[in-house]
Amino acid sequence: MTALAAVVDAGGASVTRLLARVEERMAEIAESHGALLGRYAGDTMSAGGKRLRPLLLCLAAGVPTPESEDIVRAGAAVELVHAATLVHDDVLDQASMRRGRPTVVARGGRALATSTGDLLFSRAFAELAQVGASPVEAVRILARASAELASGELMQRADAYDLDVTVERYQERCRLKTAVLFRAACELGALLGGGDSDVLARFAERIGIAFQILDDVLDIAGSPDQTGKARGTDLLDGTVTLPLILARQADPLLARLDLRALSGQREVESVCALIAASGALERARQEALALVAQAKADLPRLPGRQRVALELVADGVVERYS
Amino acid sequence: MTALAAVVDAGGASVTRLLARVEERMAEIAESHGALLGRYAGDTMSAGGKRLRPLLLCLAAGVPTPESEDIVRAGAAVELVHAATLVHDDVLDQASMRRGRPTVVARGGRALATSTGDLLFSRAFAELAQVGASPVEAVRILARASAELASGELMQRADAYDLDVTVERYQERCRLKTAVLFRAACELGALLGGGDSDVLARFAERIGIAFQILDDVLDIAGSPDQTGKARGTDLLDGTVTLPLILARQADPLLARLDLRALSGQREVESVCALIAASGALERARQEALALVAQAKADLPRLPGRQRVALELVADGVVERYS
Repeated sequence: MTALAAVVDAGGASVTRLLARVEERMAEIAESHGALLGRYAGDTMSAGGKRLRPLLLCLAAGVPTPESEDIVRAGAAVELVHAATLVHDDVLDQASMRRGRPTVVARGGRALATSTGDLLFSRAFAELAQVGASPVEAVRILARASAELASGELMQRADAYDLDVTVERYQERCRLKTAVLFRAACELGALLGGGDSDVLARFAERIGIAFQILDDVLDIAGSPDQTGKARGTDLLDGTVTLPLILARQADPLLARLDLRALSGQREVESVCALIAASGALERARQEALALVAQAKADLPRLPGRQRVALELVADGVVERYS
Repeated sequence: MTALAAVVDAGGASVTRLLARVEERMAEIAESHGALLGRYAGDTMSAGGKRLRPLLLCLAAGVPTPESEDIVRAGAAVELVHAATLVHDDVLDQASMRRGRPTVVARGGRALATSTGDLLFSRAFAELAQVGASPVEAVRILARASAELASGELMQRADAYDLDVTVERYQERCRLKTAVLFRAACELGALLGGGDSDVLARFAERIGIAFQILDDVLDIAGSPDQTGKARGTDLLDGTVTLPLILARQADPLLARLDLRALSGQREVESVCALIAASGALERARQEALALVAQAKADLPRLPGRQRVALELVADGVVERYS
């Protein structure tokens, strides 16, 4: 059993049922906009992925999770924002594949993908406004997170090709690009389940940053079979990530690298190989593991089996990359 | 005095003060995201435009308009969604100029413009969630409208180059692309001011559709001096609008036109001239004027000077194109 399957198991039948209802709700939303959204965004959403954010939301709401329509709506909203950013990211990166399938931008073009992302964003807020308990606070949490996600993308574009990016700035970018939505999922769960929002938010931010670091490691280390996309795409679009920052400290050849001069997959593969040889992938991985360990260690005793389940999620974040 | 200046005048000092506060609020939001948003989105927002949506919102809330922070926030939210769609539309259309200035996509590239639009969307909902009275209903109104705006864009892309588009389908696209945000502005105003939402929503939809028809007329008829962009851009990206639909009914040469084969500004200018010669521009303009007249005629007696002010807005929509 994978770690994430284990956590769903630890979360109990209520989590399994809730995640199935989130799935159903998302399918309903896709269908409600007719053939257009159904064809493109519906595909993106049904292609799935790990549903990590709705899962976090459920567990943050308590274990066993209260089986309320509010949890289903909030879970769908978080996943819709995630799907929207994926669709837009693929436009920005001109990515052709995601999770082993053609992206919306590859199938429908940039224009259609941009509108599809906008529609998913809007539907997320429409969904959240229907949450019966604390809808205002719920919208506030998600709006803040989505503004930060966009800021993170803007920061990444501003930093493109800048090899002097510090580790601190890189980490802040990871927080904005990824961790804030993990945090929002936990805050929404805490809001609806009555848990301690601060504790859960801190946990979520740490595993979110670790998740992004490991994703960046995978971009250099992973095989297309594993990631569903070509290796070194970050290098090609000038995104300077932790493996490259660390590798440049160790390898004078990489220190003199000009990312703008990189062209073609063969050159990219060579740079990936140099980064791997420098030991930077292992160091970056250790950094992520340390964050996950810290996140787990700082979890207080929580009611029910919540702590066990959250620790398993943290392990699940690491597992994909081990 | 222009019609829109007259309406601000008719709305009284409260509307003038409220619109100034909406301006300030938008500047604060732009600055709150640091140099990046300030540089790109701030520019887009400060470039202004008519602020027609916040104006409608104020007047729908009553004349004189109650000077509340809620009205300011809702006005800023509506204008932020409008700005977000403009930034994304310019990405989709690869437009280089808007209101006589370089677009965000022209200055910062597609990637940056996509994220900037996302950020503006998110901030709109964050703003609305802070409305003290009925925030949930407010978010619901704006979320529905922004989902419809995106559906309208998707519909436009789906219909691209399709010369068999009917007048009815074209009108539905106008409603989705433009009128729904006019309607949302009026619904928000009615919500915050206690007015009759249905009456105001119907008025707003009609003038919104008229506004889009006249915009489409201007794309064929207008000079770059007047519009701040090249003429016939809709033809170039395959958007079939009312002037072309009507002109094709009258001119056999246009009936055989293949939009995909159009290349270069000279050919586009020739098609614009044929459309103008067919009388279609005048017929489309009459259609819009009839909608505006209908919108005005259906306004009931409203309290205070509200009806006068709203009729002046309707005239203002027409005026730009006269």
